Amino acid sequence: MTVFKKVAIIGVGLIGGSLALAAREIGVFNYIIGIGRTPNNIQKAKALGVIDDYSVDLAQGVNDADLVIIATPVCTIIPLIEEMLPYLKKGAIITDVGSVKEKIINRVDRLNLSEIYFVGGHPIAGTEKSGAEAAFAGLFKGKKCCLTPSKQTNAAALKKITDLWTAVGSEVILMESTAHDRTLGAVSHLPHVIAFSLVNFLKNMDQSSKSIFDFSAGGLKDITRIAASHPVMWHDITLMNRTQLVDIIESYQEELNSFKNLIRMKDSNRLVKKMEEARNTQRNIIQKT
Amino acid sequence: MTVFKKVAIIGVGLIGGSLALAAREIGVFNYIIGIGRTPNNIQKAKALGVIDDYSVDLAQGVNDADLVIIATPVCTIIPLIEEMLPYLKKGAIITDVGSVKEKIINRVDRLNLSEIYFVGGHPIAGTEKSGAEAAFAGLFKGKKCCLTPSKQTNAAALKKITDLWTAVGSEVILMESTAHDRTLGAVSHLPHVIAFSLVNFLKNMDQSSKSIFDFSAGGLKDITRIAASHPVMWHDITLMNRTQLVDIIESYQEELNSFKNLIRMKDSNRLVKKMEEARNTQRNIIQKT
Repeated sequence: MTVFKKVAIIGVGLIGGSLALAAREIGVFNYIIGIGRTPNNIQKAKALGVIDDYSVDLAQGVNDADLVIIATPVCTIIPLIEEMLPYLKKGAIITDVGSVKEKIINRVDRLNLSEIYFVGGHPIAGTEKSGAEAAFAGLFKGKKCCLTPSKQTNAAALKKITDLWTAVGSEVILMESTAHDRTLGAVSHLPHVIAFSLVNFLKNMDQSSKSIFDFSAGGLKDITRIAASHPVMWHDITLMNRTQLVDIIESYQEELNSFKNLIRMKDSNRLVKKMEEARNTQRNIIQKT
Repeated sequence: MTVFKKVAIIGVGLIGGSLALAAREIGVFNYIIGIGRTPNNIQKAKALGVIDDYSVDLAQGVNDADLVIIATPVCTIIPLIEEMLPYLKKGAIITDVGSVKEKIINRVDRLNLSEIYFVGGHPIAGTEKSGAEAAFAGLFKGKKCCLTPSKQTNAAALKKITDLWTAVGSEVILMESTAHDRTLGAVSHLPHVIAFSLVNFLKNMDQSSKSIFDFSAGGLKDITRIAASHPVMWHDITLMNRTQLVDIIESYQEELNSFKNLIRMKDSNRLVKKMEEARNTQRNIIQKT
């Protein structure tokens, strides 16, 4: 497979840093330059051996790069692509790891890039941790990575990015970007919105002298774990997938409301049936993913 | 502390079975009889050494018991108390482990028991597992146990049940039953309703050829884990705490709705602020409980 001689990674956090470690481990990236707005995190990334060198200057960092990986919050991806274009060499490939794809793909298609190739990607991996110090080479092993080509996507560039993710252990899935955003909106963005809201709701309720959190058990820790996710990253995801996500939240609100009404109406049969269905789905499908 | 010579446990599942194991380990229960409607689970409990003997007959099982522990789904507790009263010896103590308390306490108060003492309890411990085979002696160590005495509760009986839970390693908290149900409604019952609804919502959305669950990561497993909880047990809890729980769900619906509207209105500042608040509460309070 293609070995990328010079790779620029913008945003050396959990995802960008882990991809650097994984690709270097298997010899697919020769030289990695990390790019950040401020030196703090990328100095740490260099000290940790995640990258070879770093730059706070985008133009300088992407200069002569064969591959540019954008691993910053999703709202920054389009501006970064537009800003870096004048400095890229012919034949450079840009890819990203953003959790929302439709707006990015559509915007890049409208740019009508010439001799610069963009491939939209989204590795489905991550934890609620963030930063270069959370990066590890095994993050993508056994995970799925969505690539969302459009009609304009260059086939050779798509092949190279497919090979890269396959090489670091991921199963690559090609999806249309709108379908991607709808699916991830449901299984990832909605759960985050629910968790953020639940934590804030409980905190606001917690006005008594004895904290209500003193009475919580392991269940509350698990259901709220993703509420500790990175605020700016998730702000960007919710806004970039705004239209579909609002629709999805509203559909969930209907489900929650009908469940509440079963309780209100003491509809025992349907309550038990809904709980049994949820248990079966959780045990037989979700637990096994 | 008081050693109970004969203890009858109705419902030898995770909670009833674990209390049997824990109390026997420290010599506080001399003889334990398990009572169940059908022999299946209690035969298993006897074979596992959780109980000394078993009965499917309530009158026979509670005969001569010093302590009766009701560890069955909460809707069955009041009927069981009423049914067993004629067969109890004078001085017997009844306690329960139900997750909802107000209706039970109010009903028992209206019974005006004479020389039979009831103490309402709720150990805050458990997993999504159920059945005697899930029981283990350490379940209550370091956990909280709420006892919800009313004005009619006998002080000596309350002391004995307090000592029992303390002896198996729990921190006993005395609460008024309405406050208990409101607190647990928020930190436990609401999260279960949210998890059941989320799983069913996603399952119903999952109509495409490629399952949307193929795109979920660890976050979805965690947030839905409690949706695998026991359907009948949770049916009972939601109905026994119906009035307060419906109120709590509605308040949560308002929070979720206002979060959705921040996304819809692209209110970046307030979105980030809400996510930061949720992250801080999750990390600094919930994770540390």
